[in-house]
Amino acid sequence: MTHSALIIDNLQYANWSEKIFQQMVEGGVSAVHVTIAYHEQFRETVLNMEAWNRWFETYPDLIFQGFTADDVHRAQNEGRTAIFFGFQNPSPMEDDIGLIEILHRLGGRFMQLSYNNQSFLATGCYEDEDPGITRFGKQAIAEMNRVGMVVDMSHSAERSTLEAIEISSRPIAITHANPHVWHPALRNKSHAVLSALTKAGGMLGFSLYPHHLKDGTDCTLDSFCQAIADAAASYGAQHLGIGSDLCQDHPDSVVEWMRNGRWSKVLDYGEGSAGNAGFPPQPDWFVDNRDFGNISEGLEKVGFDQAEINGIMGRNWLNFYETSFGASAAATG
Amino acid sequence: MTHSALIIDNLQYANWSEKIFQQMVEGGVSAVHVTIAYHEQFRETVLNMEAWNRWFETYPDLIFQGFTADDVHRAQNEGRTAIFFGFQNPSPMEDDIGLIEILHRLGGRFMQLSYNNQSFLATGCYEDEDPGITRFGKQAIAEMNRVGMVVDMSHSAERSTLEAIEISSRPIAITHANPHVWHPALRNKSHAVLSALTKAGGMLGFSLYPHHLKDGTDCTLDSFCQAIADAAASYGAQHLGIGSDLCQDHPDSVVEWMRNGRWSKVLDYGEGSAGNAGFPPQPDWFVDNRDFGNISEGLEKVGFDQAEINGIMGRNWLNFYETSFGASAAATG
Repeated sequence: MTHSALIIDNLQYANWSEKIFQQMVEGGVSAVHVTIAYHEQFRETVLNMEAWNRWFETYPDLIFQGFTADDVHRAQNEGRTAIFFGFQNPSPMEDDIGLIEILHRLGGRFMQLSYNNQSFLATGCYEDEDPGITRFGKQAIAEMNRVGMVVDMSHSAERSTLEAIEISSRPIAITHANPHVWHPALRNKSHAVLSALTKAGGMLGFSLYPHHLKDGTDCTLDSFCQAIADAAASYGAQHLGIGSDLCQDHPDSVVEWMRNGRWSKVLDYGEGSAGNAGFPPQPDWFVDNRDFGNISEGLEKVGFDQAEINGIMGRNWLNFYETSFGASAAATG
Repeated sequence: MTHSALIIDNLQYANWSEKIFQQMVEGGVSAVHVTIAYHEQFRETVLNMEAWNRWFETYPDLIFQGFTADDVHRAQNEGRTAIFFGFQNPSPMEDDIGLIEILHRLGGRFMQLSYNNQSFLATGCYEDEDPGITRFGKQAIAEMNRVGMVVDMSHSAERSTLEAIEISSRPIAITHANPHVWHPALRNKSHAVLSALTKAGGMLGFSLYPHHLKDGTDCTLDSFCQAIADAAASYGAQHLGIGSDLCQDHPDSVVEWMRNGRWSKVLDYGEGSAGNAGFPPQPDWFVDNRDFGNISEGLEKVGFDQAEINGIMGRNWLNFYETSFGASAAATG
């Protein structure tokens, strides 16, 4: 039972390759939410979907596109990995609310309302001012709620995040971030946010991106798992999962793109710095998709029972998928 | 049984409105293949899909988007109309073969390889020269076959059409045209084409657009039904259906767009003429979606039995939908 438990990683952005897809399957990862847009507009996002379609066609024994929670069961039964699309910025919907339904039809299941900067919809966590959810943002949240696209506030600012939780009629997600109390990085989340998020039925995906970890690359497995245990004590284990933010095999030019898109002529270092501009190395206990077993073991050592571990490693996200990806009851016609 | 028989109209392009959707339901039309692009590029086609999504949301008691043959049964059971998307030109896929799968995911089920003019893929019926299916065209047909998008050659030239029938690994369609032997219009189809089409399992949708009818607007119901009877004798009734080409409530500016798109600075009159440039009036026995009963009765008068009538009015298209809209067996992963 332990080794065949369901694993879902609710955020990765790798330099995708057959090697990585094989590692997903070897690691028993049944579903991965993959980022397919950071700053891409609609047509560019569709080109990224086309690239994924080519991979689905080329590696059908390893991966297929996921649309519903049932696809996760199918992946687990068939020893494959279901790939779910998400966007870290609302750039794919441009200025057009009608594109939300189109993107959902194409498989988009998570969309951040902002990525570090101010968007049309909400404020990013690097802005000095956070005026909250905009007029367009309120309309977009309602439309995302209607069609079944999850609001993700991982890179958003505090007030915008609290308002999104309040405004959204369905539970939202912070797919990849950690508690600020454990590691006070700008990207990590306050108690107020995590409390409101989980009280509203939302999910937090624990990140393994070194800038989000206490002691960065040197973070210990025990410290990471203890942070999850502390969060479980505060918010309930059923609201916690993994969103590793694994950025595997990328050249550093990609993290420059993630941080700078086309918006800045002056290099922005985001969570890094001029002296530490590239992708940081992963902790040695979580390097690729074959290392989720280490986390399961670490969770056991800090005192979680098997049901809680199964929840955190995949079941909690699966439950969230089940109620989040379909049209709202009011919208089914 | 007679009055509740399944009705499918496999081509319309109307100035869509609640009135027309109500007429579909009143007329007992369970499925309509609607044109959503004449010359539109990808992003423009998506805007047209967004407009349809708005109609689906606004009139859920009348219409919903159809993706599979099962949706036709659902429409019939619920007294609604399933709307299937199609393109009269490959313009929505631009120069990008990857867009075929994207458009199919969005519900595109029929695509003409050319519309009157030469395209990247094939030749249109108004060109002087017809070099047949192009290199890109062969790749596009294979991809359409793989994902389940039907090749439609209604507006294509003779050699291109014969080659498409030959090259396609799945049956193709001529969604809206009539036999040339009955009315020798440029848009109507030769015996050679209809024979090859139907021998390969393809479908012909009989058009009610006056330029395709013997005696145009004055065409009699009996003449129309006799043409179907003659075609049934030559090719088999099971390969015949309706593709009315009903262009309801449009201003004449729309037929100008259909004929001229953005490709000509000199007005092209297509099947019309300088003295008869607009939409021609419909015959009085087929004006809107409530008139399919007239055709059923006409078919009975020319000697079809009830099973044949049910086939022509809808069942034959339904059978075709069942085997045409899914991924090819080789493509399922």
